[in-house]
Amino acid sequence: MRVIVWSDDRAGAGLEPQARAEHPEGIASTLAVLLEDELGPRAEITVAGIGDPEQGLGAERLAASEVLLWWGHEAHEQVEDRQVERVRAAVEAGLGFIALHSAHHSKPFRALMGTSCDLRWREGGDHELIWAVDPHHPIAAGVQSPIDLGPHEMYGEPFAIPAPEELVFISSFSGGEVFRSGCCFRRGAGRIFYFGPGHETHPVYRHPGVRRVIANAVGWAASAGRHSPRQSTPGEVDPIWSTR
Amino acid sequence: MRVIVWSDDRAGAGLEPQARAEHPEGIASTLAVLLEDELGPRAEITVAGIGDPEQGLGAERLAASEVLLWWGHEAHEQVEDRQVERVRAAVEAGLGFIALHSAHHSKPFRALMGTSCDLRWREGGDHELIWAVDPHHPIAAGVQSPIDLGPHEMYGEPFAIPAPEELVFISSFSGGEVFRSGCCFRRGAGRIFYFGPGHETHPVYRHPGVRRVIANAVGWAASAGRHSPRQSTPGEVDPIWSTR
Amino acid sequence: MRVIVWSDDRAGAGLEPQARAEHPEGIASTLAVLLEDELGPRAEITVAGIGDPEQGLGAERLAASEVLLWWGHEAHEQVEDRQVERVRAAVEAGLGFIALHSAHHSKPFRALMGTSCDLRWREGGDHELIWAVDPHHPIAAGVQSPIDLGPHEMYGEPFAIPAPEELVFISSFSGGEVFRSGCCFRRGAGRIFYFGPGHETHPVYRHPGVRRVIANAVGWAASAGRHSPRQSTPGEVDPIWSTR
Amino acid sequence: MRVIVWSDDRAGAGLEPQARAEHPEGIASTLAVLLEDELGPRAEITVAGIGDPEQGLGAERLAASEVLLWWGHEAHEQVEDRQVERVRAAVEAGLGFIALHSAHHSKPFRALMGTSCDLRWREGGDHELIWAVDPHHPIAAGVQSPIDLGPHEMYGEPFAIPAPEELVFISSFSGGEVFRSGCCFRRGAGRIFYFGPGHETHPVYRHPGVRRVIANAVGWAASAGRHSPRQSTPGEVDPIWSTR
Repeated sequence: MRVIVWSDDRAGAGLEPQARAEHPEGIASTLAVLLEDELGPRAEITVAGIGDPEQGLGAERLAASEVLLWWGHEAHEQVEDRQVERVRAAVEAGLGFIALHSAHHSKPFRALMGTSCDLRWREGGDHELIWAVDPHHPIAAGVQSPIDLGPHEMYGEPFAIPAPEELVFISSFSGGEVFRSGCCFRRGAGRIFYFGPGHETHPVYRHPGVRRVIANAVGWAASAGRHSPRQSTPGEVDPIWSTR
Repeated sequence: MRVIVWSDDRAGAGLEPQARAEHPEGIASTLAVLLEDELGPRAEITVAGIGDPEQGLGAERLAASEVLLWWGHEAHEQVEDRQVERVRAAVEAGLGFIALHSAHHSKPFRALMGTSCDLRWREGGDHELIWAVDPHHPIAAGVQSPIDLGPHEMYGEPFAIPAPEELVFISSFSGGEVFRSGCCFRRGAGRIFYFGPGHETHPVYRHPGVRRVIANAVGWAASAGRHSPRQSTPGEVDPIWSTR
Repeated sequence: MRVIVWSDDRAGAGLEPQARAEHPEGIASTLAVLLEDELGPRAEITVAGIGDPEQGLGAERLAASEVLLWWGHEAHEQVEDRQVERVRAAVEAGLGFIALHSAHHSKPFRALMGTSCDLRWREGGDHELIWAVDPHHPIAAGVQSPIDLGPHEMYGEPFAIPAPEELVFISSFSGGEVFRSGCCFRRGAGRIFYFGPGHETHPVYRHPGVRRVIANAVGWAASAGRHSPRQSTPGEVDPIWSTR
Repeated sequence: MRVIVWSDDRAGAGLEPQARAEHPEGIASTLAVLLEDELGPRAEITVAGIGDPEQGLGAERLAASEVLLWWGHEAHEQVEDRQVERVRAAVEAGLGFIALHSAHHSKPFRALMGTSCDLRWREGGDHELIWAVDPHHPIAAGVQSPIDLGPHEMYGEPFAIPAPEELVFISSFSGGEVFRSGCCFRRGAGRIFYFGPGHETHPVYRHPGVRRVIANAVGWAASAGRHSPRQSTPGEVDPIWSTR
């Protein structure tokens, strides 16, 4: 299982000091270590960033991978449209896609959703609880609900996404808001999971529940690749029953 | 538009004193007045109760109605199975069904869902906020989100229902819980809406947002009846293309 | 109710002779007359085309309309990206969008779906039957199922769309194929309906069942506009419960 | 993986001569051999029937199994309501349930759906093609689409089920009809798959595509059991944030 962890923080150089203290080598590195710890040798994790050649999203690399994690924050608009279309098409062809936190506004996620993906937000000392509303979903396996995340940036409804095909988690915030924080979508052969946690100044990727969810999501998203490719090529075809 | 409001509180006689003070003529009466006020002369509202002949659920009455509101609490198990099946079949044939508050455990709702409809709950001074996560849904039309419900019984996840076909509202509680408090389902020609508010000791049916939601839901559920009946009778049929 | 009928056939000038005989003033004109006949004075129908200023898709015009029908065939790639984004955003803001026949490959439809929308096809003398699998849906109201369409271009599965939120019609073809030919989606406040019939050389828009479906779909897609706009502006907000 | 194959044909004694020639030891036996061949030693297959103690549906047996396949035809009404509720509850608790062919009218399937599950049908020499409309679904893995089933009883729309959560297969019949022949549902922890093939006088369970689908479905339905049980017990609970 080959997994790419992508971020737009230029290996941490693009982060503010407080975030950089939390992620000295960048957020992609934090997530890569998380996945190595949780998934062990069955996964081969690499990091990619906006400063890499082809912005880290070359066609061969995407084709050779099962899952792409995306963390983005400040540089959404710098991702080039050709890379966006390459990612979108790779997902439709079977690449799993995990959008974390502010990746709700990333270009690939928005291209896959067809909507603005706007939401309400606040950095104001809220605490967040993440509830499994579908506790039997494979992404919730082994997770103690609720995940008591502690302080985190508030993300609230309305969240301008299409109705999720599977809604796994809903968060509450101490300010009173709710948020669909764990949402599954499918586009073609590709499985997509949006997961709310990940504000760069909070140590939320250390929480065992969050770690388990992300690891589960990678396994879930990668499993699409195990299935057979599309059997019938679209395009012009002959009739099945020629005698008609 | 003919609407039946059903309750199992024997016109208020089955309520505790505090609830009876809130609903002197019973909860069905409270809801009937609410609908008369909100819907005006275009709706013909009648009340029904567990103490009526055929438990208020005679076949002719159901067939002549567009929507059935159900409020039940203590007497779920006293509803006879033949009435349950009659209601279930009437819904499938096009009767709108609005399940309010503790009607999550009513026999007709469970029969329509196929699940236990269990949930977590607490009477403990929580405040509830109801958020429109689908603000463009007709049931949310004209509703200011969030509805600040004030004190209410907490109902929390996991809520053992099938995935709603449309999720309109999610509630947060000051104790930290979340709840899918506005859920749409369809069974055959019938539209079903579950809505959380309605604990008998709280004046929640006076809240303008709640009133609007219930009135909207009745209109939404009744609109199924405007459409044409099933064109093709199930059963044995002849081939369309006989020449094959 | 203001409805725009858009096509890329340059008022028929872009059609082959056989299609032009069927649609002497172009397909948008055929559809406009259809809607005038079916909807009467309650709808104000205008036509638009790829040769108009701003390709017929100016911001004011979109904002002043409830529904946009789209028929496109040969000139998909000539629609400019800025118009595509304008249409996508207008749909998310509440503009109904009806994609007919080969509009499956139009840029706005693909942008709203997030997928390639590829399918299998054949021009080979197939007959098509359109079955209402959701006969209680408002779009199927008054429609005799199946619609016996007679000869039509075959469109077959797999159809590379996200799972429709409501699946209303499935077609069978005499060559043996099946196709999800009536599919509902929602993106924000906008309702989207894809409907298969419309190959330019077949007189399928004369069929009373097809006409009824298209008129129903316009009413269904326009009804989103009746509901209240989004109540909560996305962006940064204050906590509801400041005492927490 | 423990799998129960249930039928109401009394080990073949309840079948007509033509069907008995096809299934000399009954349909449950045919299916058990199919699963042994396809799944090998990783599955432990047992048969059960309506003539067994507790109609083959004892509580311990259900609790010790991962998947229940159900084939029923003539004796639906003889299944006792207490067994029906036991099966329904076991599915909600995580037992996979595969309903084959005429099991659409079985009591457990109807109890899980909440609808009549009526359909249109014909025994008239139709041929059936089964198309994967979701070729990336695990149940379609390795299946060549379409499955050319040859002669089979026609089952057609409208099929009175709730909208499937995942629609995997649609069939066409040479008489012109279509049918949603492969449908996934979830109820609580349990996964449910309805699959159309299985008329007792046709050798459809010998078709490699059908065999693969049934084996895939057992694996898919059993995988729910791999996930952790519900973490939060429904019922009365304490607040998470007591300080509020």
